[in-house]
Amino acid sequence: MTEQTSSYAPVPLAEVEQFDHTTDVVVVGYGLAGAAAAIEAARAGASVTLLERFSGPGGSSAQSGGELYLGGGTRVQKALGIEDSVEAMEAYLVAALGPHADEEKIRLYSQGSVEHFDWFDAMGVDFHETLWESTGWMPFTNDGLMWLGENAWPYTEIATPAPRGHRPPAPGFAGGALMEKVTATVEAEGVDVRLDTRALALVVDETGAVVGLRAKGFAGETTIRATKGVVLTTGGFVDNERMLADHAPDLLGHGKVSDGGDDGSGIEMGIAAGAATRRMSAIEVSLTFTTAMASRGILVNALGQRFVTEDTYPGVPSHAALHQPGPVWVIMDEEGFDSLSTGETWGAQPKHAAETVEELESDLGLPAGSLAHTIALYNEGAARGEDPLFHKNATWVHELKAPFAAFDPADMARAAGSSTTGFSGFTLGGLHTDVDGRVRRSTGGFVPGLYAAGRAASGMHGYGYVSGTSLGDGSFFGRRAGRAAAGA
Amino acid sequence: MTEQTSSYAPVPLAEVEQFDHTTDVVVVGYGLAGAAAAIEAARAGASVTLLERFSGPGGSSAQSGGELYLGGGTRVQKALGIEDSVEAMEAYLVAALGPHADEEKIRLYSQGSVEHFDWFDAMGVDFHETLWESTGWMPFTNDGLMWLGENAWPYTEIATPAPRGHRPPAPGFAGGALMEKVTATVEAEGVDVRLDTRALALVVDETGAVVGLRAKGFAGETTIRATKGVVLTTGGFVDNERMLADHAPDLLGHGKVSDGGDDGSGIEMGIAAGAATRRMSAIEVSLTFTTAMASRGILVNALGQRFVTEDTYPGVPSHAALHQPGPVWVIMDEEGFDSLSTGETWGAQPKHAAETVEELESDLGLPAGSLAHTIALYNEGAARGEDPLFHKNATWVHELKAPFAAFDPADMARAAGSSTTGFSGFTLGGLHTDVDGRVRRSTGGFVPGLYAAGRAASGMHGYGYVSGTSLGDGSFFGRRAGRAAAGA
Repeated sequence: MTEQTSSYAPVPLAEVEQFDHTTDVVVVGYGLAGAAAAIEAARAGASVTLLERFSGPGGSSAQSGGELYLGGGTRVQKALGIEDSVEAMEAYLVAALGPHADEEKIRLYSQGSVEHFDWFDAMGVDFHETLWESTGWMPFTNDGLMWLGENAWPYTEIATPAPRGHRPPAPGFAGGALMEKVTATVEAEGVDVRLDTRALALVVDETGAVVGLRAKGFAGETTIRATKGVVLTTGGFVDNERMLADHAPDLLGHGKVSDGGDDGSGIEMGIAAGAATRRMSAIEVSLTFTTAMASRGILVNALGQRFVTEDTYPGVPSHAALHQPGPVWVIMDEEGFDSLSTGETWGAQPKHAAETVEELESDLGLPAGSLAHTIALYNEGAARGEDPLFHKNATWVHELKAPFAAFDPADMARAAGSSTTGFSGFTLGGLHTDVDGRVRRSTGGFVPGLYAAGRAASGMHGYGYVSGTSLGDGSFFGRRAGRAAAGA
Repeated sequence: MTEQTSSYAPVPLAEVEQFDHTTDVVVVGYGLAGAAAAIEAARAGASVTLLERFSGPGGSSAQSGGELYLGGGTRVQKALGIEDSVEAMEAYLVAALGPHADEEKIRLYSQGSVEHFDWFDAMGVDFHETLWESTGWMPFTNDGLMWLGENAWPYTEIATPAPRGHRPPAPGFAGGALMEKVTATVEAEGVDVRLDTRALALVVDETGAVVGLRAKGFAGETTIRATKGVVLTTGGFVDNERMLADHAPDLLGHGKVSDGGDDGSGIEMGIAAGAATRRMSAIEVSLTFTTAMASRGILVNALGQRFVTEDTYPGVPSHAALHQPGPVWVIMDEEGFDSLSTGETWGAQPKHAAETVEELESDLGLPAGSLAHTIALYNEGAARGEDPLFHKNATWVHELKAPFAAFDPADMARAAGSSTTGFSGFTLGGLHTDVDGRVRRSTGGFVPGLYAAGRAASGMHGYGYVSGTSLGDGSFFGRRAGRAAAGA
């Protein structure tokens, strides 16, 4: 690997001859977290300058699925007659974002979730009062609510299930529709937005406090005085190969879920100013496949073993698959495949079809007898109407009968050109913040004047992930960081 | 969790009124890495002061198994007629210490391995020219050589196997015997050793270069000028709960393999001086059990599935078990148990015994039918004299017949009081060094005057581990750091 070096060493205040511009709060990075911080800082009465390196707003948020993980009784949940509680939401998130989720952040997030829904609602994000009943990634519908694993084992034994995946009315990736409303609000609040402007370094005074920022735009370098604080919302570091190798090598070689600008610049600027980091190895990773298919059959590893509940949020099998002997396969029979509705297969074609399980083992290179015993055990449970290993919902469990077909869950990602391995992901670790976005100093206490949110920070996540929790905690804690920076 | 804070903020040179002592090289931490650095710096002509917080030398190294992973044709290997090569050793380590092992460090380590053996040999470490043939942790013999997974699948397909676990003649934990010779050499080289002396902070000049160290002993604080460099060999951070929570939460709640002083102080001092870190989430973890037993039977998870080669270095099943649905069990039949030699069971008693596999599934709380199918598949392979899933050596493979016994691999650790969970471990990540121990700066380049080795640094390891590679890379790269600090 070539040696990538980057220098985000802070600029000492004493070396700044003059500031080109003075504002209360500087926000760096115009994704959802940055927009949320800017809106709330402005509403708290602060003058806000929002910098974005690219020519348009949105960041990786605008390219995302657009889900917001919200619950506890939102307007959409209530209209659909869905009972939910803060406690159930909190218990689910602690389990699903774990192990080692941040329980304090999750508690606040769950308690504030209905208000956070209303915040988006008030800016015109139009959540339809309809539920997409299936499991999976983004639906190709305008439905406003979806399940994200809450009704799958083992979570069913941990918390009363309720669907909490809220999304704007856009088929597939809805992040653009979400960010359209959010950026309109940023403009309405009078935020000074500067596109094509790349942050170079923080400005720190002799006590180590952050008092400004140096940036570079088309007109050259500019040094901005931030009288109240700087909020880093620059995203994660999946686009920085050196940082991945040092901190999150699980993602090396896989596809990148980003807008191309998630190079960890904000994290590195923070570290250079003395910031502590947290959970730098934590990642989100996904295989592009449909759990609708896997649920009707079984998902097996290269030893012919099942390893995960098939009818859960698809990120769970994706993450598990990354650490299984691979490749992994979706095995289906005709009854299972025929039970799929149009649209649930995403056009997937079997890679192998076989008249017998022995033939399929041979075709897939599985150890002789391994898949036969896995299917026999599965069928013994199915005859009793249950899945004794992973407690898949009985709705999807039926005895598997030859002939069989095997699907490669990575096929769709490869066909789409998004990943040669089938896996794509982004990083979850970053600057170590408190619940108001204050960045901790590595030697104790905080770095005065410095705040962070979104994937530049370590948020609610431990080592698990669910759709909607990155936009969710980025916006929720982005808002808190904006208010804190404004001194509200 | 209570908020642990520690301040290792560096002392600016301008604030040092006077130095109490001046030396060329200061080494912090008197385990094997520190001793190696001190010896080599002294031999290169430098005056060396070696600080140790505890009242005696040795650190965690003295409490370890004492294995040194060495090969490529050592005296012991040659005397036993074992053929080995640098290339085979390198290929094995890249695989066994991976994924994501440091290939540059492994290459140098393998190339220098015979010379490194001779370095220990010359100081009187008495490696016997006898081979312990079995697999497992430290033997209760004086044998000088042992296997550490080289002859187990999949490594047999990656590199020509040779035993490379070298150890001094001491039954069980041999780290004390090793350190006895090493500390005698430190004394013989005229190193200024200061026990009961705890490092408090680095002293840095106005350019950020490390020029000394402040420490505290019985006589109060002392500030030492290091004209050539400071070498941090303070160990990892398994004894620091806050650092574990932030960086390596997999070890939270488990036993600690340390002398009680592995609190990450050196890593934090380095970070506070601008150092970069690497692989802070990487860990070693072990279950106290014998692979001699597991090899004669099977190791299964809480779903009744096998998940690992049983006859490999026991750290491999240990690490795998940490991420399996637990508890895990060793299942044996009478033929397997009776084939064990005295000493191979470590006195282990079955937790459950059952006349039938169905009864055993019930006793262990395994899903109905799960273990039955696992044993049936295993027996089909055994009838062919093979293990199609994990390619365990055919020597150990036989058809498993009722009655069965189940052993809990965590029992011995719990009985010894070393861990309530059965798992114990230590951290592998730390300061980001080059092959000469120079500590990288987070903003690029290096921190002048600062070196690190041993578990205070990120060494050869990716996310795998083999006995002897921590003492091995600690001493090998400790020597290089000592020479580099001395300006050799």
